[in-house]
Amino acid sequence: MSKNIILIGFMGTGKSTLGRYLAKRMRAKFIDMDIAIENDLGMSVADIFKRYGENYFRQQERELVKRLSAKSGMIIATGGGTVKNPANVADLKKNGVIFCLEASIDELVLRTNKPGVRPVLDKMDKGDRRKAIEELLEKRKNIYEKAADYHLDTTEWNEEMLACQIMQIMGETVVNVDLGQDSYDILISTEIDQRITDFMKQGKYSQKGLIISDSNVAPLYGKKVQDIMEKAGIKADLAVVPAGESSKALMSTEDIYTKCIEYGLDRKSPIIALGGGVVGDLTGFIAATYMRGVPFIQIPTSLLAQVDSSVGGKVAVNHKLGKNLIGAFYQPKAVFMDMDMLKTLPEREIYTGLGEIIKYGIIYDEKFFEFLENNVEDVLKLEKDKATRMIARSCEIKAMVVSKDEKESGLRAILNFGHTMGHAIEKNTNYTKYNHGEAVAIGMVCAARISVALGMIESSVADRIEKLIETLKLPTRAEECDLDTLYGAIFHDKKTVNGKVKWVLVDGGIGKVKIVDNVPEIVVKNAMKYCLK
Amino acid sequence: MSKNIILIGFMGTGKSTLGRYLAKRMRAKFIDMDIAIENDLGMSVADIFKRYGENYFRQQERELVKRLSAKSGMIIATGGGTVKNPANVADLKKNGVIFCLEASIDELVLRTNKPGVRPVLDKMDKGDRRKAIEELLEKRKNIYEKAADYHLDTTEWNEEMLACQIMQIMGETVVNVDLGQDSYDILISTEIDQRITDFMKQGKYSQKGLIISDSNVAPLYGKKVQDIMEKAGIKADLAVVPAGESSKALMSTEDIYTKCIEYGLDRKSPIIALGGGVVGDLTGFIAATYMRGVPFIQIPTSLLAQVDSSVGGKVAVNHKLGKNLIGAFYQPKAVFMDMDMLKTLPEREIYTGLGEIIKYGIIYDEKFFEFLENNVEDVLKLEKDKATRMIARSCEIKAMVVSKDEKESGLRAILNFGHTMGHAIEKNTNYTKYNHGEAVAIGMVCAARISVALGMIESSVADRIEKLIETLKLPTRAEECDLDTLYGAIFHDKKTVNGKVKWVLVDGGIGKVKIVDNVPEIVVKNAMKYCLK
Repeated sequence: MSKNIILIGFMGTGKSTLGRYLAKRMRAKFIDMDIAIENDLGMSVADIFKRYGENYFRQQERELVKRLSAKSGMIIATGGGTVKNPANVADLKKNGVIFCLEASIDELVLRTNKPGVRPVLDKMDKGDRRKAIEELLEKRKNIYEKAADYHLDTTEWNEEMLACQIMQIMGETVVNVDLGQDSYDILISTEIDQRITDFMKQGKYSQKGLIISDSNVAPLYGKKVQDIMEKAGIKADLAVVPAGESSKALMSTEDIYTKCIEYGLDRKSPIIALGGGVVGDLTGFIAATYMRGVPFIQIPTSLLAQVDSSVGGKVAVNHKLGKNLIGAFYQPKAVFMDMDMLKTLPEREIYTGLGEIIKYGIIYDEKFFEFLENNVEDVLKLEKDKATRMIARSCEIKAMVVSKDEKESGLRAILNFGHTMGHAIEKNTNYTKYNHGEAVAIGMVCAARISVALGMIESSVADRIEKLIETLKLPTRAEECDLDTLYGAIFHDKKTVNGKVKWVLVDGGIGKVKIVDNVPEIVVKNAMKYCLK
Repeated sequence: MSKNIILIGFMGTGKSTLGRYLAKRMRAKFIDMDIAIENDLGMSVADIFKRYGENYFRQQERELVKRLSAKSGMIIATGGGTVKNPANVADLKKNGVIFCLEASIDELVLRTNKPGVRPVLDKMDKGDRRKAIEELLEKRKNIYEKAADYHLDTTEWNEEMLACQIMQIMGETVVNVDLGQDSYDILISTEIDQRITDFMKQGKYSQKGLIISDSNVAPLYGKKVQDIMEKAGIKADLAVVPAGESSKALMSTEDIYTKCIEYGLDRKSPIIALGGGVVGDLTGFIAATYMRGVPFIQIPTSLLAQVDSSVGGKVAVNHKLGKNLIGAFYQPKAVFMDMDMLKTLPEREIYTGLGEIIKYGIIYDEKFFEFLENNVEDVLKLEKDKATRMIARSCEIKAMVVSKDEKESGLRAILNFGHTMGHAIEKNTNYTKYNHGEAVAIGMVCAARISVALGMIESSVADRIEKLIETLKLPTRAEECDLDTLYGAIFHDKKTVNGKVKWVLVDGGIGKVKIVDNVPEIVVKNAMKYCLK
């Protein structure tokens, strides 16, 4: 059960405003205690004070605190004086974390200059509002100090920044994918169950849903996610496909559609992907096309899926003549990443995720690339804090790119770094010898060498890329591949338009790339040769 | 070859502005003659007049007219004095229709009040601009009168209205589906080939495309459309599926995807639906999902497809357990309706289209319903003008509804009038006994009777509906159906959410409908019984 977030602080520090924002941001329930009491009694706090006196108001407040402390996962904005009563503080702390909002005196004087809504100030002499605030603040200082678990300064107001600080403290890392109406959050956390339940409850979904998983993941987490859905009032059936790329086929969809229909899923039934990239892509394609689209939720369980396929709305199944040739752009309603689920990942699955992670450094963020270089050990063992940072940064970069170019008409192509050759290697080895991240790793070496050949970077930059790939236990050379087959395969890539292959190449240094569509055959083949064992 | 549209008229009548709008609207090429000459000579018309004199300018203009008259399908805005030369008029008329734009003197004085751009006026005494305009207008009156095929008053400026007038005169009926970035035009015409070519040329598509058609339509028009594409520089392969609903299956898609890949279609390759509803839905699904979406063009050849499935972007294939259960919302780039293609339609295919057409009258437009009642004979034989009006009005109503609710979250549901029972009848008779329009016709009778039972309309209204359906040679009773099977089937409709069937019912009279989701079982069954033979 996730803890309540309690906002305390002097009047005018922004408890209600930030609370409402945070609730929207975290899709949690929000209670403004003063307003709740006003609604209960059918009159304003000022009137309650006037008619019944402060004591009566405090009694009402005390009762409300007791009720709220029994709940969880809520955002609560207290009244300015709620924490004067130590019993209230004790109750609130039982199942919550208390954040004290603060602001400069100047700012508070400014913000509280609305007569009629602040009974305590209104009773006072208006001529000396500033002095009154100072005095009251001085009186309450110790009370707030004692009650607060954390302090936040709201003088320079930035809702998003403040919300992120609170979410981080609460152990939640949230990355927003900004796509207008189709925007959604990626939540990275170790305690994610309650958050999923809360989210699902608020989605107004039908009472039946479907979880799609594979034969590796379903036995580990299938029941768990069904229980989470059950708590949100959703009876979710579980469809299990055999683990592996072969399940990502039109054939598999037919059976799952049948299950959807027979189980009685309708247009508001959520379909949840629980697994790696194969499950995510397959599930997304089903969700995009069943009844012309139903709500889609992602719970990626592999590192690769977390940093790559679960972000950005590309869903697809394979065709016998090529990967991902049948698909759609279909955004999930939310993505939930449970860091604990990574613990059950086989080592090779971790390395393959690292392939895509390195890519983000190369295409956009040299500092992030350095972070990986400097934290190899922690990265390899997915040390919690480092891994969270690494996953969040990868998602942020991908989210930024996707936000700017959802349908892959321009910028998004840079995400394809290493993929032109990577896809060719996967195809040439029948999608069995190398997994995706490994193939992309070799593809990145190839792209880096083309960049060198075209004079876009020094060879030392390509060496540095190659070294990090090696250190993170990924291959840099492809076995069992044939040069001409590889070369032929790059023309069948989806990104190829009118026969032109779009290479993403490193341009000027790590963190900067450029699309080049006229790389001479000889340059490509030389770089390919370099990457063959 | 479609004719040029030539805009003449006094300075300030809006030739350039309307021309540009019209060109965008019709996706045709636009030439502003004055600007073309300015670009040629690298100086403004005013400067040409000053430096070389009017005669020189007129020579240049003459040459340009000759060149333009050899082209077709263009929008040409002439200079204010172009038609002073009868030779220019003769040339322009050869392959074009001349529209003379006019406006009130007051308006012209207002619009021409920009010194420096109107050399003729600038030379004159500024103190008496109005008088100068009057004089010049008087002088040119006869010239314009003689040259013009049509006159249009632009005093009360409305680009869209003027553009529609011109398009109608040119024999083109255009309905715009307003979906923001995804907006597109439906073009209804008897001479459509050149317009398709023009459109395709401007689409920046790849040089390879695919036409999907069925075994009935492909022999009639397959080659023709391939030639049209060829003229636009697109080599389009032809994929032919067996005629009939059974082709609308996931199975069929697999083969077509293979064809797409083997033929080398890329992300910018247009995929064209040439056929009825089955072909349109199947092709749309392929276009929506091949490489996550490629440009989609509709050429509906049946009346039903023209007024229903080709408008609105719903694409789908069937599942063995239900129709249209696998699909997407995917808008075409354009819809071209060739009235001549309807000539080859079997009679029963015409009647089935009329089923949906009647529906538009019932759900939205009593006047249109009356128009059908009053023109039964012309409607049944698809008399050109009446049929065009009927198809255009149907598309307009559907376009309006779809524009307001693309993804079927509210209003769009009214298009489902008659479909709840209609789908059930189709299913109960295995999609063989009745075609779609026939099943919907019976479904409309059923919905009307439910409306009567719930007191929403008088029974005379239901009688009137039933009568028009009968007169237009559609069935009003279903054979070979079983009451309980029908009743069970309505709960498997895609529109059913959480077990609630959403009935679209006539509310208050023809032209008005309402969604009702709690119709008692007995009421539904009684109405169903009424419709069984």
